[in-house]
Amino acid sequence: MATIKDIANKLGIAVSTVSKGLNGAPDISEDLRQLVLDTAVEMGYKTKRMRKENHKKLAILIENMDYENINDFGYDLILGFRQMAYRDNWQVDVIHVTDSMQEKEKYNTYMLKHGYTGAFCMGFALQDTWMKQISKTGIPTALLDNYVTLNQHVGYVGTDSYEGIGLAVKKLVKMGHKKIAFLNGSRNSWVSDQRQESYETALKDNKLTLDPALTAFGHYVADSAKYHVPGMLEAGATAILCGNDLIASGVYEVCKDKGLRIPEDISVVGFDDIPLASEIEPGLTTIRQDRLELGKCAYFTLNSLVHHVSISKTMLRPQFIERDSIGKVAK
Amino acid sequence: MATIKDIANKLGIAVSTVSKGLNGAPDISEDLRQLVLDTAVEMGYKTKRMRKENHKKLAILIENMDYENINDFGYDLILGFRQMAYRDNWQVDVIHVTDSMQEKEKYNTYMLKHGYTGAFCMGFALQDTWMKQISKTGIPTALLDNYVTLNQHVGYVGTDSYEGIGLAVKKLVKMGHKKIAFLNGSRNSWVSDQRQESYETALKDNKLTLDPALTAFGHYVADSAKYHVPGMLEAGATAILCGNDLIASGVYEVCKDKGLRIPEDISVVGFDDIPLASEIEPGLTTIRQDRLELGKCAYFTLNSLVHHVSISKTMLRPQFIERDSIGKVAK
Repeated sequence: MATIKDIANKLGIAVSTVSKGLNGAPDISEDLRQLVLDTAVEMGYKTKRMRKENHKKLAILIENMDYENINDFGYDLILGFRQMAYRDNWQVDVIHVTDSMQEKEKYNTYMLKHGYTGAFCMGFALQDTWMKQISKTGIPTALLDNYVTLNQHVGYVGTDSYEGIGLAVKKLVKMGHKKIAFLNGSRNSWVSDQRQESYETALKDNKLTLDPALTAFGHYVADSAKYHVPGMLEAGATAILCGNDLIASGVYEVCKDKGLRIPEDISVVGFDDIPLASEIEPGLTTIRQDRLELGKCAYFTLNSLVHHVSISKTMLRPQFIERDSIGKVAK
Repeated sequence: MATIKDIANKLGIAVSTVSKGLNGAPDISEDLRQLVLDTAVEMGYKTKRMRKENHKKLAILIENMDYENINDFGYDLILGFRQMAYRDNWQVDVIHVTDSMQEKEKYNTYMLKHGYTGAFCMGFALQDTWMKQISKTGIPTALLDNYVTLNQHVGYVGTDSYEGIGLAVKKLVKMGHKKIAFLNGSRNSWVSDQRQESYETALKDNKLTLDPALTAFGHYVADSAKYHVPGMLEAGATAILCGNDLIASGVYEVCKDKGLRIPEDISVVGFDDIPLASEIEPGLTTIRQDRLELGKCAYFTLNSLVHHVSISKTMLRPQFIERDSIGKVAK
């Protein structure tokens, strides 16, 4: 393992300066501190505190995702991850990541400073500063729904969107639907792009043509529906696939306001199967992601990366859960 | 069968320490216990308890692949799988599968009759009778290098061919090569198709045109080379990528017979990094698959499927191992 002296030699500065950089002393410049930390990461240096600590530490870094309530998408993911990590005696910290955190500090620096051996990142957007840095990081990192090429230290975990959306479209076509709309989640998201592609592929597989009026990106929240659903209905949609269950719950509201019955007048399909899906009326047909298992797979992937086993992808199959929100197309 | 003394000798530790490791005594470290167990598996040791117990059983079904010698492609795969399965107390049988077995009995019937809870299948060809049956099976099945859609009970394990072949082609192009040939393995193989696609994608990415005279399917054996390499050389190949290291060793022979020097006159790249790759002269540059870890991932996938967690894909990143068989293009 590298020593403080190695870092000092490499940078051509005094040992005392390196020590200041590592310990966050106020009397060196921010740029120099950053350089010391970056070099320390690169050389595999660990502070005394890091070596002394009883607990090896992993971080769950979350952005753009709710996780505190059992109804939230992230809840089971964190639970599954924690359950597995606990067995191997890891301490797991859950950290809500903001834009300003990402601006203030580099990903590697943040991880090193807080003594994290690796991270499971959930909900990151494509244009995030840390996502760009993660594509080149040497720190073991598992990404939910994000994929990075050619980096031995980073792995992807997710659910197969192609199979999920394929199953839903096939079922709707069988029920006579031809105008199947897709109200996607947010732009600038790797997984939204995947689902868009999956939707377009599924239409082609079922010999339906893509109508731009029947598809839109919104956000992964219920409110999205009111901006996009009226246009889709005008364009003749008889079924609406949604980027997640929250969006679907918003579609319910808009349709009810317009006096449309589900599924008699319009069919609705969600994605995820959060508890809400079986609680709303009528029960929401949806594409289930097993989030507890995804969390466990994320741990397996991250733990493998920590042990220099370069898993690039772990993918779960979705399940098509049929409830009461889809029916034969209205004549 | 190996004895406790054999294990002690191999590890250079006391018989009493081996015994502690095998029996889970608390006064040895977890790492040492694991090492003892892994070595016991590798040497085929069975404790008295294991010999007495009625074991839950998993099958490793192998076709078209050597595995008995440490130099064989399948050896480490089986070892990795066994090491993991042992910890969960599974009995693992390795079965060499033939065409006539597949004709005589259905896959499900075979598994049921022999009391296997699940199988890890290696080396199956696309047209195999059992492959067709596996696409619809309800029995937990992990496939090496084969992918089945929409079956919750079947998962894929493999190495990312795109990244591997991409790295090799990029490196060769950097060395000035423009006529890069690809001598693939057998037809009717999912993974051969993947590698062919990867090769064609990599050419496109590097703005090279595909010359049909520079690519051929052969078989995953050394002998393949003599049928295809002469034509590739005539067509002007300055580098030959191979479907595996055995094929590459055959390419060495053909080139040497023709008086061509490697790498001065022709560059050669293998796939897999079996021990042979570092033993032949000059050392073979190759795309490494971590077979021990692939075996462990196969176990993880199969064990998940057994517990109704539907993993569809576990993919490892390859590593580009540069030795002495590639060089700048001859002027």
